[in-house]
Amino acid sequence: MVKEFIDKIKTKEIKIGILGLGYVGLPLMIRYIEENFKVIGFDVDEQKVKSLLNKKSYIEHIPDDSIENAIERGFIPTTDFSLIKEADALIICVPTPLNKYREPDLSYVLSTMKNIQPYFRKGHLVSLESTTYPGTTEEELRPIIEREGFIIGEDFFLVYSPEREDPGNQVYNTKTTPKVCGGSTKKCLEAGLALYEKIIDKVVPVSSTQAAEMTKLLENIHRAVNIGLVNEMKIISDKMGIDIYEVINAAATKPFGFKAYYPGPGIGGHCIPIDPFYLTWKSREYGVHTRFIELAGEINSSMPEWVVNKLTMALNEAGKPVKKSQILVLGISYKKNIDDMRESPSVFLMEILRDKGAVVSYSDPHVLVFPKMREHQFDLKSENLTPEKIKQYDCVLLATDHDDFDYDMIQTNAKIIIDTRGKYSAKLPNVIKS
Amino acid sequence: MVKEFIDKIKTKEIKIGILGLGYVGLPLMIRYIEENFKVIGFDVDEQKVKSLLNKKSYIEHIPDDSIENAIERGFIPTTDFSLIKEADALIICVPTPLNKYREPDLSYVLSTMKNIQPYFRKGHLVSLESTTYPGTTEEELRPIIEREGFIIGEDFFLVYSPEREDPGNQVYNTKTTPKVCGGSTKKCLEAGLALYEKIIDKVVPVSSTQAAEMTKLLENIHRAVNIGLVNEMKIISDKMGIDIYEVINAAATKPFGFKAYYPGPGIGGHCIPIDPFYLTWKSREYGVHTRFIELAGEINSSMPEWVVNKLTMALNEAGKPVKKSQILVLGISYKKNIDDMRESPSVFLMEILRDKGAVVSYSDPHVLVFPKMREHQFDLKSENLTPEKIKQYDCVLLATDHDDFDYDMIQTNAKIIIDTRGKYSAKLPNVIKS
Repeated sequence: MVKEFIDKIKTKEIKIGILGLGYVGLPLMIRYIEENFKVIGFDVDEQKVKSLLNKKSYIEHIPDDSIENAIERGFIPTTDFSLIKEADALIICVPTPLNKYREPDLSYVLSTMKNIQPYFRKGHLVSLESTTYPGTTEEELRPIIEREGFIIGEDFFLVYSPEREDPGNQVYNTKTTPKVCGGSTKKCLEAGLALYEKIIDKVVPVSSTQAAEMTKLLENIHRAVNIGLVNEMKIISDKMGIDIYEVINAAATKPFGFKAYYPGPGIGGHCIPIDPFYLTWKSREYGVHTRFIELAGEINSSMPEWVVNKLTMALNEAGKPVKKSQILVLGISYKKNIDDMRESPSVFLMEILRDKGAVVSYSDPHVLVFPKMREHQFDLKSENLTPEKIKQYDCVLLATDHDDFDYDMIQTNAKIIIDTRGKYSAKLPNVIKS
Repeated sequence: MVKEFIDKIKTKEIKIGILGLGYVGLPLMIRYIEENFKVIGFDVDEQKVKSLLNKKSYIEHIPDDSIENAIERGFIPTTDFSLIKEADALIICVPTPLNKYREPDLSYVLSTMKNIQPYFRKGHLVSLESTTYPGTTEEELRPIIEREGFIIGEDFFLVYSPEREDPGNQVYNTKTTPKVCGGSTKKCLEAGLALYEKIIDKVVPVSSTQAAEMTKLLENIHRAVNIGLVNEMKIISDKMGIDIYEVINAAATKPFGFKAYYPGPGIGGHCIPIDPFYLTWKSREYGVHTRFIELAGEINSSMPEWVVNKLTMALNEAGKPVKKSQILVLGISYKKNIDDMRESPSVFLMEILRDKGAVVSYSDPHVLVFPKMREHQFDLKSENLTPEKIKQYDCVLLATDHDDFDYDMIQTNAKIIIDTRGKYSAKLPNVIKS
């Protein structure tokens, strides 16, 4: 059976089903199309499917051209899960957020499995790409399929292969970023490797789905902890009158044993603030603690308050309260040069400032209108920046350092700049690093 | 004055004084000799000076040849501090340990300053290389010299330039490792840069001695925290039945945003276990906390106990108590392929095992006799390893993974191996990863 499946990949007869057409699913679809595979894309969001059928992208860094090209080459976006029958490989790329108690929310994964279930057949491969705790694939997905009487490694294949999408990365893309893959059995792994090797330059096998799940978590825990560390170092350096950016850049000249991470106003995106807590939750089952994760979470999530405190002190120095002050937030996506707003610390900054009575505006060339978000509401549009405009604000808060900003013009005209990204020299009279 | 000093460097008329002839001072001396400078080396340890006069090295990775060559080219090792008069640059390379309350012990630095003081004269430059908290140079060293009436930046120059020695590093050496330097004044920095640029390929100026002090601390805090993190991840993975080494190696295939650090039986050496607490101590003055440092310290220092627990369980499984069991520790230096025993976790492991009644032996090709240590005593010599010998031990504890060990021979003959370095596959029946 595995031989048949692999042969079908070789001859490109295999049909790829991608479930979840977002930041992960779309680039994956494009790669398979590029390699002349047939791809069906599933999403429960009718808007997304409609947009794709109209050859329009809804992700800034994926151009409409790519979608148009994919559609022309046979890509079928659909909300109709009965087409699952026709797909051979089912690659799940749905979100795995946290609920409000910071516990794993597998509802998107499980409802996807529910949508697949009626159409599941022999010869299917299921690959989960969503970040999750070790054991998800074996404990949650496998029983759902086995319950139907299918034999793993014979009738169907199950792998876990974490996505490593990095929007805005100018060096590595989907094809050139190595991809880790673990299978429920040896044959599952064989099938998974064959599937991904067609579109990824280097697929890295590991001995189990658990090892693959832990790998993705370690990557993001490593980032969360290192950012937490430099945020703590920023607070300490600030007290001591030392510029943390100067220190980090000097340390980065050590050619071994050091990797530079930079502080910021908090952490954002769909990975770093969330994924680590999947391990925290699972660890409780084993009676062990994830103390570094907790500490990093605590420090990183306290950064917006720390920044607002710096801003409050700066306004106070100028004889103004926050209340009714005009504050311009520069950059509201969670990282530079992209439009992704998920978990953006800028939004937390804006909310805290609004709660304190400030009049908040923003400017972001990548987010022209403040989007509808589940838990945040701002009826705002991005401000066009002119010298006159900048002069009007009591304070400019640099939150996300997009390359498109005219930093000199802003600095020349701003009354006060609170710089959370180390973009300006601390020696400038109107700049306060934070 | 600074021009004169720099000219003297250019013409190589300058005499270099190095205070403290250990792991840091000796390589520095050799570099200056290589560049045809005159060097006087000061140490309070008569044994060291005698050894150098006899053209013998006391550091494994520095061959006798280098010492012989240096002496022949005019290097003067001495305990006579009156020669300070003759030296122009005074480079301090003495230890900065912690006292038993984990507070900075600056006694070596301060007694060195006391030894210098009577001979201090105009035109001297003092450079501190010892790792220490931000403010040491300005708050401790500067007043000692200014008290004598010398004017900083005019009569004398003061810089802080942290050592980055990495014994055993096969890629980077003293010359090719960039060196950070901060001065008390601009002229001090100028003089310091000129001094080091003669022997180091790239000298990195920073804006203050405090920034330079913090840079070195950040480098080592980064390491301590990252090792602490993977040690915590090891404990969690172990509970979940996941091989942490497999996970780290898989994560390391991500070409951005990740740097691999490896767990171990604890942390050793003169830097990582010690330096971070210099910042912890200083931070108290500012009312801030170094929580990542504390957490890393706690987890890293608990690792020997964790390893001994694994070993105890493994012996128990074989029906044996630790008491009277024959245990062989492989590798007792703090890191592979070197002879440095400072803060070695192997010693802690040996002590814990001895306290529990085990009969402890060791083998280490780099440490043939267990050295005299201030706080540890073992009357042992390194065992020569033969298949028969290995068979005698109830348990072999791999603590430091020197390349010289015959790992296959050891594995073939050992009853039980406790592997703290991920050297063996966990699938081998007699191997327990820890």
